[in-house]
Amino acid sequence: MAATTDAEGTENAGGETLSATVIGASGFTGGELLRLLAGHPNFEVTQATSREYANKTLGSVHPNLRGLDLRFSEPSDLESVDVLFAATPHGVSMEHIDSFREAADTVVDLSADFRLDTEAEYDEWYDGHTCPEYLDDAVYALPELTREELPGADLIAAGGCNATATLLGLSPLFDAGILSGDEQIVVDVKVGSSEGGASPSKASSHVERSGIVRPYAPTGHRHEAEIEGILGTSVSFTAHAVDMVRGAAATCHVFPTSGASGGSEDSSSGVPDSPVSKGDLWKAYRGAYEDEPFVRLVAGGSGVYRYPEPKAVAGTNYAEVGFELDPSNERIVVFSAIDNLMKGSAGQAVHAANLALGVEETAGLEFEGLHPVGSP
Amino acid sequence: MAATTDAEGTENAGGETLSATVIGASGFTGGELLRLLAGHPNFEVTQATSREYANKTLGSVHPNLRGLDLRFSEPSDLESVDVLFAATPHGVSMEHIDSFREAADTVVDLSADFRLDTEAEYDEWYDGHTCPEYLDDAVYALPELTREELPGADLIAAGGCNATATLLGLSPLFDAGILSGDEQIVVDVKVGSSEGGASPSKASSHVERSGIVRPYAPTGHRHEAEIEGILGTSVSFTAHAVDMVRGAAATCHVFPTSGASGGSEDSSSGVPDSPVSKGDLWKAYRGAYEDEPFVRLVAGGSGVYRYPEPKAVAGTNYAEVGFELDPSNERIVVFSAIDNLMKGSAGQAVHAANLALGVEETAGLEFEGLHPVGSP
Amino acid sequence: MAATTDAEGTENAGGETLSATVIGASGFTGGELLRLLAGHPNFEVTQATSREYANKTLGSVHPNLRGLDLRFSEPSDLESVDVLFAATPHGVSMEHIDSFREAADTVVDLSADFRLDTEAEYDEWYDGHTCPEYLDDAVYALPELTREELPGADLIAAGGCNATATLLGLSPLFDAGILSGDEQIVVDVKVGSSEGGASPSKASSHVERSGIVRPYAPTGHRHEAEIEGILGTSVSFTAHAVDMVRGAAATCHVFPTSGASGGSEDSSSGVPDSPVSKGDLWKAYRGAYEDEPFVRLVAGGSGVYRYPEPKAVAGTNYAEVGFELDPSNERIVVFSAIDNLMKGSAGQAVHAANLALGVEETAGLEFEGLHPVGSP
Amino acid sequence: MAATTDAEGTENAGGETLSATVIGASGFTGGELLRLLAGHPNFEVTQATSREYANKTLGSVHPNLRGLDLRFSEPSDLESVDVLFAATPHGVSMEHIDSFREAADTVVDLSADFRLDTEAEYDEWYDGHTCPEYLDDAVYALPELTREELPGADLIAAGGCNATATLLGLSPLFDAGILSGDEQIVVDVKVGSSEGGASPSKASSHVERSGIVRPYAPTGHRHEAEIEGILGTSVSFTAHAVDMVRGAAATCHVFPTSGASGGSEDSSSGVPDSPVSKGDLWKAYRGAYEDEPFVRLVAGGSGVYRYPEPKAVAGTNYAEVGFELDPSNERIVVFSAIDNLMKGSAGQAVHAANLALGVEETAGLEFEGLHPVGSP
Repeated sequence: MAATTDAEGTENAGGETLSATVIGASGFTGGELLRLLAGHPNFEVTQATSREYANKTLGSVHPNLRGLDLRFSEPSDLESVDVLFAATPHGVSMEHIDSFREAADTVVDLSADFRLDTEAEYDEWYDGHTCPEYLDDAVYALPELTREELPGADLIAAGGCNATATLLGLSPLFDAGILSGDEQIVVDVKVGSSEGGASPSKASSHVERSGIVRPYAPTGHRHEAEIEGILGTSVSFTAHAVDMVRGAAATCHVFPTSGASGGSEDSSSGVPDSPVSKGDLWKAYRGAYEDEPFVRLVAGGSGVYRYPEPKAVAGTNYAEVGFELDPSNERIVVFSAIDNLMKGSAGQAVHAANLALGVEETAGLEFEGLHPVGSP
Repeated sequence: MAATTDAEGTENAGGETLSATVIGASGFTGGELLRLLAGHPNFEVTQATSREYANKTLGSVHPNLRGLDLRFSEPSDLESVDVLFAATPHGVSMEHIDSFREAADTVVDLSADFRLDTEAEYDEWYDGHTCPEYLDDAVYALPELTREELPGADLIAAGGCNATATLLGLSPLFDAGILSGDEQIVVDVKVGSSEGGASPSKASSHVERSGIVRPYAPTGHRHEAEIEGILGTSVSFTAHAVDMVRGAAATCHVFPTSGASGGSEDSSSGVPDSPVSKGDLWKAYRGAYEDEPFVRLVAGGSGVYRYPEPKAVAGTNYAEVGFELDPSNERIVVFSAIDNLMKGSAGQAVHAANLALGVEETAGLEFEGLHPVGSP
Repeated sequence: MAATTDAEGTENAGGETLSATVIGASGFTGGELLRLLAGHPNFEVTQATSREYANKTLGSVHPNLRGLDLRFSEPSDLESVDVLFAATPHGVSMEHIDSFREAADTVVDLSADFRLDTEAEYDEWYDGHTCPEYLDDAVYALPELTREELPGADLIAAGGCNATATLLGLSPLFDAGILSGDEQIVVDVKVGSSEGGASPSKASSHVERSGIVRPYAPTGHRHEAEIEGILGTSVSFTAHAVDMVRGAAATCHVFPTSGASGGSEDSSSGVPDSPVSKGDLWKAYRGAYEDEPFVRLVAGGSGVYRYPEPKAVAGTNYAEVGFELDPSNERIVVFSAIDNLMKGSAGQAVHAANLALGVEETAGLEFEGLHPVGSP
Repeated sequence: MAATTDAEGTENAGGETLSATVIGASGFTGGELLRLLAGHPNFEVTQATSREYANKTLGSVHPNLRGLDLRFSEPSDLESVDVLFAATPHGVSMEHIDSFREAADTVVDLSADFRLDTEAEYDEWYDGHTCPEYLDDAVYALPELTREELPGADLIAAGGCNATATLLGLSPLFDAGILSGDEQIVVDVKVGSSEGGASPSKASSHVERSGIVRPYAPTGHRHEAEIEGILGTSVSFTAHAVDMVRGAAATCHVFPTSGASGGSEDSSSGVPDSPVSKGDLWKAYRGAYEDEPFVRLVAGGSGVYRYPEPKAVAGTNYAEVGFELDPSNERIVVFSAIDNLMKGSAGQAVHAANLALGVEETAGLEFEGLHPVGSP
């Protein structure tokens, strides 16, 4: 990789174009990676693999990419590039990680294969891990929380969609000492159909999936592991499928005074001496996000869009985060919304690659979204 | 159920047709009342009032009722009937209750005006009450919970949609001693656009409301009062608008061992001596609902519809109730789904009237719903 | 309608219950047949076959039928019943027709296998026919057009969804002499996803099919053959898939003066001596449908629902038919809307069986539909 | 306006930024103009007017623009700018055109006020015209058809959405001599809810508008006038509202041999000597569009997206055009799809301004759209 010049590897090539491969390019997140990289000033996709669609045009699968000349190629024959994005189902990257790393100095994996810290966690939440020796190397990428670790990283695990929505909502409360980790935290997530991937099934057919509010992960969702890995505490997580294609909206219900610590920040005893105020919350969230290019605080106000809303960020790398205080029961309700394919996947991966390779953080991710918009 | 005939005025018509008026008949729940009563063997609608559409045909507003001959009439001139259904916005019934009761021996109110017990509650949650002397008379109608009080009742307050979904989910846990009232209870509800009523606004336009996951009552929803009135304990309630027209789905997250009581039923000390099992839950819910004609238990199993789903009950008076146990955090997740205009309003009102007047409980409410169905 | 008892074999049961089998009961139209027959006063389903779901409960596939006790059985072992409904894909009935007719005196086939008149037509539009000797026996069932042929029929081919919508719109114009058959007739149809059947595919997934306006049969749709068989003239037919689950809406554009005949009815020369008036149209459509229990004329007027609308008839056996006259180009635009699974399939089949077996024409088909309703 | 330097006015400012005002900036197309201009390298919005939202932030109406600092201002006080975009309802621009032209050398009007050629046409299709003296000046902007007239134009009438979709579909058939203007042309259009504008009404509410196929302009749509103005012949136009927010899809049914001319191009007699072939169609459409940056030909092929599809172009300035030949009835079916707010309005206006002011044609319009996407 020629672009980096210092020990941290964070300097940009000053306009030099970096070559990129997308593995699993016919999938939903693969398609979004192709779109983002095609419009990115610093990257050029030189290879896009798909077993199923090898030799077909990108546009035959992704109609928005009809203008691109590239065709899908077989994943067996990887070119040498500056950065490789793996957008494959869980379990594939861990099998092929050696060939990925051979092909590129920087690998960004969009699956769950390198998100957790230890082999034991993969034994608990997945079917084990075939390549645990790389878990230590891998940097978890949710740039708002792990920005410092990304420059120069050569194996990046982009954070998952539901975990991203949840973590962006909750982490400022931990950072500000409003939550300590002893509280019960309920996370009720609503997601779109693109989270299910591109393989057709009866449950994902338009006929059966239209108009639903379907508890598809009532308990035990694997993103709990990812959230716990970052927050250091467990959450009670439930996901519902609703009638949209893109989007993940997390509603976190937390009770700051229910744990051992809480409320006001000057509490030295660990016992809250005053309830949390709305001012405390604004302070916590502004402190966390006011310099973040991809987080919008949306909490109340007038108009139609008073709280985070997936369709307001559809197609973009933005996250909206907001909150409300319920004084009667000392509850904080935190809302966050992302596009699961963007901030929850392909956008996050490009954001991380930008930071890892020292290019402009927001490059290729400037799309602001649409209004009005139906259900993107 | 044999028709009852007692001093309370519950004598059944034994086939005799009871005359009925629908107040507010051009609204959504008014239209559903008209549909149900038109197909009911024991009732005949003789008057349907609407200020806005007086003298127009019912079909000009409700296209499914084009076959009915009746026209809307002015609400100022009420005929004398056996039963009057008031499907007006909150605050209207309390103003006109005297004329309603003069026109009919049995009044079924679908608004919130007579659901709470005391004037003080109306001061807290609404803008007070103009007719508090009737609050004692009114019977709250959620037949699965208040069936015994309905025969002979002459002022009935049909339970609200979100409260109905929540209460059907939670009350078996209280009845079985799994919850005591000291636990934190999070209720995260997803509702359709028909809950907003028929008055157009920018927020309820198709353009702005399509594809949303909008927190419309992040805290302090008035149905909290109604739920607390029945359960005797407060809940942490948040409602989201999602992209469907009919339907209310409640997800209740409860932690049985977090309060003073819990778990196994033989706990005499109030301290749970064992965690709740799935068997305990089945026992609690079967005990509560196995004889109920309008409740279906749906918890797991195979196929596409494994948990309660609003679209599976759309157009019907059925409620689906299900649950899942999260052993890792000792959480019970309870799901319930209703059609907000039916089991959450017009269907509940007819069900209550059937019980109050001694006609067959399920009369007029037999529609089983559709499959497949989009987003009714 | 008094039950008829004549040599044609139309003797009614006079309250006697007729046994029924549904073949292909796990499909969409099979499920609707089960629902309709379960609520029908004259029929009882004694067998519901499904290869895939044999021995499972009906409710495991059709959540609205959870209250029924019956389980799917293997189609290989048919019971002897009064009437057999075959809701199988095209090509299956023609293979099994002998066993169907052996099992039941009356067979109602919902596929296209017996809709056309001659083997040659099956060679042209389908993959030929394995049982052409029965084509003469079969009665095409679109009761508004072929009512007289149904009493006593023992092999009934229920009209297809798009053909039904089209024929109900156009045939009154032929009957009234406004169209002669020489005119160009454009039929532009919009249909829901349930027309595609229950087998999942990428194109029918929620992700890809949401929000579409997809020309799925730009030319050469097989229903053209069926329409031509009844009208005696060809039409230019194009179908689009749009974002609804149930429904078929046909817009027919016709130019009455473009052919050899047209306009006013007193034209003896076959040449129109005056343009068609709106009064002519009302006369034609009222003449055709004013006594029909399942057709509503909807043409103009006030309110939101001024023309036929699929969602206004969703779940019902009703068809809505309307029209508009475009004086500037001497065009008549005819609109018709049905529920493709009901009036376009299962409802039509039950309607036909009612007429064939001499029971009340509307029995089991009384559901009036819902308002408001989303996208059923 | 400093940017133009020659008689044609087509030279660019070489990077110099042009100031712009958006009138009616709180509406749907106004919001899209703001979004496009914010990302445009050559324009800067200095004023965005809205009577209703004056002094509020743009983001309070358009949530995707929360990052912009500008606030709405009163329309009464117009700044002097290089270009003014008027995104007001029909009838407003003609009233204020003098002040618009005083404020800016280049005015781009997105309403219908300057699209037609003569006062007589406004008398026929609208409520007359208050400023007919400017009709001659105005250049109709549908760049694929009127590109040559745009450089240096100072009053531009951006083509309407339904007219744009229709004209892009039909004009190559006229240019290639396949249609002569004597044929009957049926145009059946399907549109999204954003075509109705931002004012709420019962018909446009989510409850009533979800899931519809509603004939909202069965005959006599005003875009017929616009189409006729360009094509020189009338069409039979019908528009249906379907369940999407953005999008207009036109299906044109034409019968080339029904008129005096037709088919093969070497016909000198005006009488077709051979039917039209698919090759003729490809030649016609490739000839028309192969160099057009914003038109994609999509006709058949494999995959899910075989024909033009509104959701494939949502948010973009692209049009998709395709066709199919129906040999049995000598019909050509032409499909075209656009985003009504973009290629049908704001995108078209920016495209026209780019051409008028000599900046790069595609500047600010590069967004390629999303896949997958629900119903944008």
